Amino acid sequence: MTATTPGNEPGKPVRVAMLGCGTVGGEVVRLLREQAGELAARAGAPVELVGVAVRRPQRHADLGELITADASGLVARDDVDVVVEVIGGIEPARTLLLEALKAGKSVVTANKALLAEDGAALAEAADASGADLYYEASVAGAIPLLRPLRESLAGDRITRVAGIVNGTTNFILSAMTSSGASYAEALEEATRLGYAEADPSADVDGYDAASKAAILASLAFHTRVTSADVHCEGIREVTAADIAAAAGMDCVIKLLAICERTPADGDTPESVSARVHPAMIPASHPLAAVDGAFNAVFVEAEAAGQLMFYGQGAGGAPTASAVLGDLVAVARNRTVGGRGPRESTYASLPVRPMGSVPTRYHVSLDVADRAGVLSTIAGEFARHGVSIAAVRQTGGRPDAGDDDTGEPARLVVVTHTAPEAALADTVQVLSGLDAVRGVESVLRVEDLGRKGVTG
Amino acid sequence: MTATTPGNEPGKPVRVAMLGCGTVGGEVVRLLREQAGELAARAGAPVELVGVAVRRPQRHADLGELITADASGLVARDDVDVVVEVIGGIEPARTLLLEALKAGKSVVTANKALLAEDGAALAEAADASGADLYYEASVAGAIPLLRPLRESLAGDRITRVAGIVNGTTNFILSAMTSSGASYAEALEEATRLGYAEADPSADVDGYDAASKAAILASLAFHTRVTSADVHCEGIREVTAADIAAAAGMDCVIKLLAICERTPADGDTPESVSARVHPAMIPASHPLAAVDGAFNAVFVEAEAAGQLMFYGQGAGGAPTASAVLGDLVAVARNRTVGGRGPRESTYASLPVRPMGSVPTRYHVSLDVADRAGVLSTIAGEFARHGVSIAAVRQTGGRPDAGDDDTGEPARLVVVTHTAPEAALADTVQVLSGLDAVRGVESVLRVEDLGRKGVTG
Repeated sequence: MTATTPGNEPGKPVRVAMLGCGTVGGEVVRLLREQAGELAARAGAPVELVGVAVRRPQRHADLGELITADASGLVARDDVDVVVEVIGGIEPARTLLLEALKAGKSVVTANKALLAEDGAALAEAADASGADLYYEASVAGAIPLLRPLRESLAGDRITRVAGIVNGTTNFILSAMTSSGASYAEALEEATRLGYAEADPSADVDGYDAASKAAILASLAFHTRVTSADVHCEGIREVTAADIAAAAGMDCVIKLLAICERTPADGDTPESVSARVHPAMIPASHPLAAVDGAFNAVFVEAEAAGQLMFYGQGAGGAPTASAVLGDLVAVARNRTVGGRGPRESTYASLPVRPMGSVPTRYHVSLDVADRAGVLSTIAGEFARHGVSIAAVRQTGGRPDAGDDDTGEPARLVVVTHTAPEAALADTVQVLSGLDAVRGVESVLRVEDLGRKGVTG
Repeated sequence: MTATTPGNEPGKPVRVAMLGCGTVGGEVVRLLREQAGELAARAGAPVELVGVAVRRPQRHADLGELITADASGLVARDDVDVVVEVIGGIEPARTLLLEALKAGKSVVTANKALLAEDGAALAEAADASGADLYYEASVAGAIPLLRPLRESLAGDRITRVAGIVNGTTNFILSAMTSSGASYAEALEEATRLGYAEADPSADVDGYDAASKAAILASLAFHTRVTSADVHCEGIREVTAADIAAAAGMDCVIKLLAICERTPADGDTPESVSARVHPAMIPASHPLAAVDGAFNAVFVEAEAAGQLMFYGQGAGGAPTASAVLGDLVAVARNRTVGGRGPRESTYASLPVRPMGSVPTRYHVSLDVADRAGVLSTIAGEFARHGVSIAAVRQTGGRPDAGDDDTGEPARLVVVTHTAPEAALADTVQVLSGLDAVRGVESVLRVEDLGRKGVTG
């Protein structure tokens, strides 16, 4: 099963074909040229760009004869050792990379969507031919994150990976927090400044972060987790009122990717989960200070304890830095022998459905201003097995007298940890109660290993 | 020159000898036993402990027949593939590790002092036999830092590495900052709580951090930097008044290890520098929030931009996590082929002497309360080519009249960046002026890539 790594003769150039040449690809070309001497010294052989495939070659006249529209032909060329893919999306990237790997060509890719959907096919093709498959640039841009998870922590047991892995949504939520802007206003600003694409759905609906969560969970837990396994909620529904409610709790709202390992408990076997959703986190937590388009990821492991990685999660140069780091590793492996880490999914832990994942809720309700309301509502939480951590009442005078004054009162409930399904069911029942005039906001609360949030 | 990695047959156990069994070694033993199945799955073969050498075997009865007092004999055993060294110090560690490497045995070590003093000898021995040499645990404990520098950023140009790499001194400075305690009081607390050793000099005099700076600079700049190249000042002289002065500038004092690359400038070639000293940093900088025994390191690279790594820099389990990550890498290399990154010192950049390193000073002077003092002092800075960023006067009424009132006034000067030697010379001259009654404190100011500190 283990094939030998296809080798280059010592000192012979490692020849690179690149698929795609947008923002990231352009920076890869620049750095390959500007740092040619340094890269050669580090890789043990010159790293030479021998071709670049793009859809519209006429736009890349500066690349001269390197440019081609025939990606498949470029991948198949005998003089190509390594394929760098920065096209993104599932097809044609998947077909091209599988062709490359089957032919023993190593692959460096930044394609999170493909890895999260069909990483297994790529890994199998790489193993069959003994080629390398590296993808540091697919998650958190320039931040060295996958190599630490795959290698530095290979002797430890990772229990949680949680962080901010999408710069667009972090920019929008940061803007809403600092200015009180609505989601629509903040999105408009992000688009104007180039932080959001014309069609922002991959970012704001959480899909981009979900792909990254799948990749992170797979590496952290030695278990194949695909994007379909990741519970995914975006930030479109986050309101200025939610932001204000969070601020009232000394919290901020961040879109988090959270991958967790749950230990075995009685008959329930050990399991893992991966989810992406907006969550309140304490304003004192280091992740709360991660503003704008930056990314930061916390990793918790049994022996190492809590680690944090912070940096630029996107952008041409930062992403190109990650691509080139992988390229040097691949070139070094081909030149001096050896192979990068293979996919490690031996643990094959079950992936927990979202309904059974323990979370905490912060619920704001508009309630009738009359006696017994709190008791009724608290009763519903109890009936669903959800323990209440704190309650705060504002406005009106609930429980203060016998009569409904007609004025709405606000009741804020923060729960202890409970299964997501029990929390969601409770909220559903509450929204149907006579005493509840409206559910103003429902936010998940994440403690992230710090002291809990209380009312 | 390049030898083939000594290989193990697939599936055959990789046999480990450990030198030393203190806090870290004890955790390595525990984790090797508790996670045996996981480590084998990740390494591709069982990782077996076959011997532990300690000075006093009778203290380790729990290890039974594994234990020996004959370290040299253990290293020489035919059935040892890998040597893990957690003794620390130069000898006998150096002799033992050189013996191991010469015999083709791979080495995993946490020994920062040895690496910083004589890493070249180890690297040469490893290259000669084709054995692996890994040392992630030598800097910043569990924080994956060396592998990112060596591998993830291998395609980038690192310009600066700056951070808090000694937990003992960070605990002491944090305690002084939060409580206003003196250095002696804070040291006493650190000793009582086990954060400082009975003889704390390696920590408080900065030697431990200097060793780490040498290792970081070597990796970041592909240049051999030894501990002798690192300018080193500890924290013994930091006073409660210094801490208060920093607070007055909205800054905190941290013991920093700073490794910098200075680009070529005219006839002056590109160079690097490494230094350890207490410095004022803005309270708003993320490093300022790193309290207690935690470590955090900023890395700046041309393409990647600014990155931060944060976590536990010491302690048995965190350090053991780093040792085991390296051990899995070594075992995997021996089992599936390949070799870890070799020492990379091709750049061989000159190491700049401290006198020419650009820094900034914050100087507090007790001055005579009479006219012309500010002018005299400002003149001395100008004469040394040091530009002043801000001046603040408190107490007395300097420059307010013709007569010395006899009351001391305080003059605080913050400079722009200037060569260290020019700053030191200026302070020396100032201290000899009639108008200066005393130099209250001299602190370096580090901006760390953030907006500057001004008065």
